[in-house]
Amino acid sequence: MVTRKEVAELAGVSEATVSRVFNGVGPMKAQTKLRVQEAAKTLNYHPNAIAQSFARRKSGNLGVVLPYLPKVHLFSTYYFSEVLSGIGAKVKDKGYDLLLTFRSLDEESDYIERFRSQKVDACIILGASDTPQEREQLKTLESEGHHFCLVNQHFAGESFNEVDADHIGGSYRAVKHLMDKGHKQIAFLNGSSQFSNSADRYEGYRKAMGEAGKDAEALRNLYYEGNYSRTSGYRMAAALYERRHEIDAIFAANDRMAIGLMQGLRELGWEAGRDVAIVGYDDSDAARVTDPPLTSVAVPFYDMGSLAAERLLAQVNGEQGSFQVKLDTELVVRQSCSRNFS
Amino acid sequence: MVTRKEVAELAGVSEATVSRVFNGVGPMKAQTKLRVQEAAKTLNYHPNAIAQSFARRKSGNLGVVLPYLPKVHLFSTYYFSEVLSGIGAKVKDKGYDLLLTFRSLDEESDYIERFRSQKVDACIILGASDTPQEREQLKTLESEGHHFCLVNQHFAGESFNEVDADHIGGSYRAVKHLMDKGHKQIAFLNGSSQFSNSADRYEGYRKAMGEAGKDAEALRNLYYEGNYSRTSGYRMAAALYERRHEIDAIFAANDRMAIGLMQGLRELGWEAGRDVAIVGYDDSDAARVTDPPLTSVAVPFYDMGSLAAERLLAQVNGEQGSFQVKLDTELVVRQSCSRNFS
Repeated sequence: MVTRKEVAELAGVSEATVSRVFNGVGPMKAQTKLRVQEAAKTLNYHPNAIAQSFARRKSGNLGVVLPYLPKVHLFSTYYFSEVLSGIGAKVKDKGYDLLLTFRSLDEESDYIERFRSQKVDACIILGASDTPQEREQLKTLESEGHHFCLVNQHFAGESFNEVDADHIGGSYRAVKHLMDKGHKQIAFLNGSSQFSNSADRYEGYRKAMGEAGKDAEALRNLYYEGNYSRTSGYRMAAALYERRHEIDAIFAANDRMAIGLMQGLRELGWEAGRDVAIVGYDDSDAARVTDPPLTSVAVPFYDMGSLAAERLLAQVNGEQGSFQVKLDTELVVRQSCSRNFS
Repeated sequence: MVTRKEVAELAGVSEATVSRVFNGVGPMKAQTKLRVQEAAKTLNYHPNAIAQSFARRKSGNLGVVLPYLPKVHLFSTYYFSEVLSGIGAKVKDKGYDLLLTFRSLDEESDYIERFRSQKVDACIILGASDTPQEREQLKTLESEGHHFCLVNQHFAGESFNEVDADHIGGSYRAVKHLMDKGHKQIAFLNGSSQFSNSADRYEGYRKAMGEAGKDAEALRNLYYEGNYSRTSGYRMAAALYERRHEIDAIFAANDRMAIGLMQGLRELGWEAGRDVAIVGYDDSDAARVTDPPLTSVAVPFYDMGSLAAERLLAQVNGEQGSFQVKLDTELVVRQSCSRNFS
């Protein structure tokens, strides 16, 4: 029987390319495809029917699991729209479709079922949180050899595929910037603790504050927690306003909370950029248009989505091992912390 | 892998019975069903989903076809993010997944293949344009009894499922508002003509201008065309600025073009809201934050997406006939046309 290897040799391409031609996956120059088809014809090559039918079991879909939040226009939130745009561009480029699954927060994940039922060839998981149940599911997925990737969420101690950003460094630079402006009593408004993002931000904050001589007790005293929503930032305004004679700056773990906080504080007569310095995180579109414009940490969400899709689809085709990538973040200085109040 | 045969043996039924249980077809004693389900659970049996969905002819996926525009962060554009958020919420509610397919503008649509390969139970088509090839494809889909719906695009003379908004009324009110402010020479910057939206906007404009006594010749003289991109609005600034002594207001067919136009005119020293009145269309987030804020026509994109998904999935279940819905639009007055310049 003629083998794939012989076809590859005659066509002057790799075996993987021959495989891709016959399985119809991946991008392919028309010329390469033609050359492989001609070589196969010359040699009277018929791809192994069983292997081919197994390959055909591929759905041609890249799955994305998204958290479902009632009342939130999910695709209109900066983080999800950018990550999905990056994934979408890559998926289009590779000839795949995108299968979106919405998961309520109170719902058990059914990642495994999704793979077993062959609805997807690989899956990107957005908004995962570090709970025992979630870890268990992901470990089962891994042990069954399914291809998946987490974006913007790290599971310490595991070797899952991950594309993350350097949130420790980003937070550290944000807090250092406030210090350079002369601020000393810098409160931290963090997001929900089940996300590794939140721990990373705290770590960057802690590092910068530690270098300035703040001890654990001092940090506890400056710590506030919301849930990444605008409303949760808004609600925190009163508590922070009460301590306006002590606190001279606030670092918020995302722009939405920072913006809600700024609104709340303004209603109390405490203006960001005038009476208090505020730094947000994400560098969303909204950061540019608030009054005052918000200093923030830019995260390359589009690139993270694109890279996750690219590596994951390469892995499906056997061209990529496991991967843990961390992209850089960047401080973008605007007017919300432009003055030195001390 | 556990086979159907093993489940049948453990449950003491035929293979056909196992198949019927998992495909939910045929009459079935509750007791038999339970026995099969328990045997399947014991053996950790998962029916092959492709075979299973073939039997049911249901994928559990609602398809959405999106235009693919390189360099555009698709999910970050107001129109698509809102429509998709509406579709997503409904799909989640009904227990479906969302299968997104990206189509390049120069690519032939393959709607039919998508249904024939049973990747989707029904399909929403966004960004369709009225070309002979597209009409042909949609008519074939219709004749084969597939369920699909167009959003924000009308095909005159066809009875396709459609959810649209009243763009004629919206445009008419926008132009009347400019007239009420005393403006007479109102230029119209339309978008690409292959979209029914563009024709609708022109019709509303024509109607209002006609009532003010403008004839066809006058309208031709005031007509400009971009392609709905910010850049195309920006590029039109010079041509409109040249006629600044004649023209006192501009109605743009979407916010993105209006915003590009405002930027271009500002660079030439012609300020919207001071030297010229400008009205946009869509009432996107951006309209609220431009300087000056942009008067615009609000379109209920989220509701359009939600309604399209709801009706279409009801149709799949035989609970809904064909539908053509048109939702209301609303003029939102801001400062870009606040003064009377005449």
